[in-house]
Amino acid sequence: MKTSKLLFETLRDAPNDCIIASQKLMTRGGYMKYMHNGIYSLYASTKRMAKKVENIIREEMDRIDGQEVLFPVVMPASLWEESGRYTSIGSEMARFKDRSGNNVVLGMTHEEAAVHLARNTANSYTQYPFMIYQIQTKFRDEPRCRGGLIRVREFTMKDAYSFHTSQEDLDRYYERCYEAYERIFKRAGAKNVIAVKSDSGMMGGSISHEFMLLADIGEDTLAICPECGYKANMEVAELKIENEPGEIEELEKIYTPDIKTIDDLCKFVNIPAQKLCKAVVYQKNLTDEYIIVFIRGDLDVNETKLRNYIGEEIHPAIITEESGIVAGFIGAVNQNAKAQLVFDRSLEGIQSLVCGANEVDYHYKGFNVQRDYGDVEYVDVAKIFEGAVCPVCGKKTVNISNGIEIGNIFQLGTKYTKSMDMTYLDSDGVEQNPIMGCYGIGVGRLIASICEESHDDYGPIWPISIAPWQVEICNLRRKDEEVSAACEKLYEELQARKIEVLYDDRDMRPGSMFADADLFGIPVRVVISPKTMQKGIVEVSYRDKSFKGEIPADEAEDKICEMVAELMSEYNI
Amino acid sequence: MKTSKLLFETLRDAPNDCIIASQKLMTRGGYMKYMHNGIYSLYASTKRMAKKVENIIREEMDRIDGQEVLFPVVMPASLWEESGRYTSIGSEMARFKDRSGNNVVLGMTHEEAAVHLARNTANSYTQYPFMIYQIQTKFRDEPRCRGGLIRVREFTMKDAYSFHTSQEDLDRYYERCYEAYERIFKRAGAKNVIAVKSDSGMMGGSISHEFMLLADIGEDTLAICPECGYKANMEVAELKIENEPGEIEELEKIYTPDIKTIDDLCKFVNIPAQKLCKAVVYQKNLTDEYIIVFIRGDLDVNETKLRNYIGEEIHPAIITEESGIVAGFIGAVNQNAKAQLVFDRSLEGIQSLVCGANEVDYHYKGFNVQRDYGDVEYVDVAKIFEGAVCPVCGKKTVNISNGIEIGNIFQLGTKYTKSMDMTYLDSDGVEQNPIMGCYGIGVGRLIASICEESHDDYGPIWPISIAPWQVEICNLRRKDEEVSAACEKLYEELQARKIEVLYDDRDMRPGSMFADADLFGIPVRVVISPKTMQKGIVEVSYRDKSFKGEIPADEAEDKICEMVAELMSEYNI
Repeated sequence: MKTSKLLFETLRDAPNDCIIASQKLMTRGGYMKYMHNGIYSLYASTKRMAKKVENIIREEMDRIDGQEVLFPVVMPASLWEESGRYTSIGSEMARFKDRSGNNVVLGMTHEEAAVHLARNTANSYTQYPFMIYQIQTKFRDEPRCRGGLIRVREFTMKDAYSFHTSQEDLDRYYERCYEAYERIFKRAGAKNVIAVKSDSGMMGGSISHEFMLLADIGEDTLAICPECGYKANMEVAELKIENEPGEIEELEKIYTPDIKTIDDLCKFVNIPAQKLCKAVVYQKNLTDEYIIVFIRGDLDVNETKLRNYIGEEIHPAIITEESGIVAGFIGAVNQNAKAQLVFDRSLEGIQSLVCGANEVDYHYKGFNVQRDYGDVEYVDVAKIFEGAVCPVCGKKTVNISNGIEIGNIFQLGTKYTKSMDMTYLDSDGVEQNPIMGCYGIGVGRLIASICEESHDDYGPIWPISIAPWQVEICNLRRKDEEVSAACEKLYEELQARKIEVLYDDRDMRPGSMFADADLFGIPVRVVISPKTMQKGIVEVSYRDKSFKGEIPADEAEDKICEMVAELMSEYNI
Repeated sequence: MKTSKLLFETLRDAPNDCIIASQKLMTRGGYMKYMHNGIYSLYASTKRMAKKVENIIREEMDRIDGQEVLFPVVMPASLWEESGRYTSIGSEMARFKDRSGNNVVLGMTHEEAAVHLARNTANSYTQYPFMIYQIQTKFRDEPRCRGGLIRVREFTMKDAYSFHTSQEDLDRYYERCYEAYERIFKRAGAKNVIAVKSDSGMMGGSISHEFMLLADIGEDTLAICPECGYKANMEVAELKIENEPGEIEELEKIYTPDIKTIDDLCKFVNIPAQKLCKAVVYQKNLTDEYIIVFIRGDLDVNETKLRNYIGEEIHPAIITEESGIVAGFIGAVNQNAKAQLVFDRSLEGIQSLVCGANEVDYHYKGFNVQRDYGDVEYVDVAKIFEGAVCPVCGKKTVNISNGIEIGNIFQLGTKYTKSMDMTYLDSDGVEQNPIMGCYGIGVGRLIASICEESHDDYGPIWPISIAPWQVEICNLRRKDEEVSAACEKLYEELQARKIEVLYDDRDMRPGSMFADADLFGIPVRVVISPKTMQKGIVEVSYRDKSFKGEIPADEAEDKICEMVAELMSEYNI
């Protein structure tokens, strides 16, 4: 490709609304064009990268016996009603009526479609296991789009669905897919990727892992133990608490006027927050029923763990007067409001706590849960924190990091095959529901994440396995016929040897051409100028600055092919 | 791929609602699964074919300097308001509100997106010409889905957009694209494809061609002159009429009671339909204004030509009493209704006509348009017919054929660049609107159309360039270890030599396996059985029945590779 004919635009500065490095550099480099909130068109360079990423994914999916299929983007609501997700998924799923008045949805995930394709087809146990996957456009009406291609509404995704006749078989396949994902991310040049245990969210099912690219700008928070290798999304990380029991005291109501915050209360009664029994109130989405969570004063509620314990969607409560809940002074003793009370494990074993008295301007001192309230089931709904006890090795070594989710794998069980009535006959002729797994990777997000970890101030540094082109030739004197002829010759020769070349044939100043080249992020750069012609050499450098040198012009073709092959070999695993 | 692990289902009989051969055979062969009206999932075999077709398209688009990009499926209505198509396109465009209440549409074509991507980027004449294309899912809310993948609502399409600084440059590029299309269809194995002049429809613009695969079941009707090679969609085919003037007569009102049809009238007054002046009434979609078309009694109105003459959308009229139009007795003389009168060229030169008298149960005889009504502009809005005069060579040789539209190319002019304010600076520094062309091919329809022309009673006969696999191995005795070992060995060896093999390893009766093989439509079939083992051979046959023979088992690998190479060579153009 010649740069003069490439449709792109580079910017000297990123627009103000660009908040992270990959977004800034990819916007400046002309990789995508904003059309609408979370909706972008991709220029040719990005599409070239996307195709390479898709091919890596395809090869690895085929290697674990995947069959590539294609599901529709627009699907009838009736299919989603079968699984129950037409109602359980909220406004992130786009819906409309077609011209005949039928309700239809835009696919944001395709479990329903996968079951639809496979049911009545895979009727015998002999046809199992199998995995079907697609690489297709998805639309998810995200409330918070951000960071360019990191979080968008429309994106290309690989989604895979496997079907099994036993949990053991799913376990084996899940492991193979886990390894395929590791290969995919390695081959695509993503370096700091870890797999963490995760929440299954709207997918249902039990075991699941997210593949996280570690990055400060990542939206996900991860708990990692460097001692034993424990890794989990903070959403599901178990918090182990070691409490000092302290002295047992009498229950005593105290007057606490003008106390608005936890801090105020700690100061007023002169105790650390660890001795407070804090109350946090939620409501169930469907029924508005109140849930009061009691938790140690220094800790926060993990809403995902709470939701999973409650078993349905929840949201922070709006406390009305009629509810009987005395905001700011909520306690367990004499709690007359109609609410479900939840006691976090962090309160277990503390003899005396300070808590609300359900009366404006009053708290209790010396609250002992068992003595003053009764036997309770302590559950784990607290957020893990830096330095917490590792739930696996028991050392106080938990680190908190940020990550971008670039892939996920789920064990779905029979949630979809049961609700959608997919069965097969086992070897005894008995009808069974197959057990499913599902496996996703977002293509655009992976590319942007790789940019996030692989760039300098001047532009992306693309791994050669996904770079839009392998080699860029910079013609520093377009008007010099000899220089241009040499560039053209090398361009043709390298292409004939299947090297992907971007040839910058524009008539412009070297500084601007190099600035663009940095933004293109192409691994190998070749510079030809009147000076290099005179010396009988070409200048070659690597985008990551690890190499810069001169090679004899008459060996340029061979040497560059060798360099490309060597760089590529790193990703041929 | 082993058939035992391939997700598919073959049917002995096609469901009753399958109306055409490709639909029947592709449904029976497990190529796609119906999900909703005009919405299908594709099984692996079809997806494999789609990828091959897409790669052929990609190579040919790249060969004419195309840059592959990606536009969004979901687009803001505001973009379509700029071009005016948000209102001019009807309910075939799906629309909904996103979670923020913004109006969005599903892309059914991407002129607006192409201009959005290129404007403010291609600002200088030096960047022209360029062509951008994508291969992406489209949704068009068709009122009449039919024929399986022939006419669906959701489909994968290659759509390309070129931008030019002069009409001459567009003409040159249009010609290159025309030739690229011919190569694409040849390489994909479509045989009976012709390009015809076509109507530009909702695209706007002037010159356009459709590529038609000739097939009786095609929805498009084509006028073809075997003498001179003239080819046009009937929608735009010019009708040349040679009238006998006949005698001039007096205008005379006649009583024509109980005359309901053209036939009745011809019998009643004893004249041929060629002497009748028939009236056909339409209304403009936007204003409901009436249009009365007068046309020779034996001819039909071509609504596309009429729409293009009127310059806006029209529909057959609903004639109300208030309109003043006397249905069944409409004429030009004393026509008092508020309506636009259109005179088709077929009336020109006839001295005496029979026509309605605008009075129930009365007609006129001896109607002479110029004498009795006045000077009129004759326009061509009649449908061409079998045996009509060729508008190019003038012989009465026009044939009428049916075709399936498998591709189209349009010259768009500046319709979109003007309305959407896309400009560049020309070499004099003057702002200009670029001139556009656009070019589409539907992937699934092409595959189904090829099946339509390339099948027998037992299944599709896929051209090897797009066949899901190149070779199928049939193991006729799964339980025989020697047979199975020989099959397995050949399967591995061929795959190692990059041959795409489907290995039918199922334990089933030969008759059923061969029936499935016919439905798979794979070009080269290899049969291994105890009998062939004994003879030291393998049986090889071509799906199109052009070859069947035995080859020594120890030469099988080489011979089969040669056969595949030879078959493939036909498509390497």
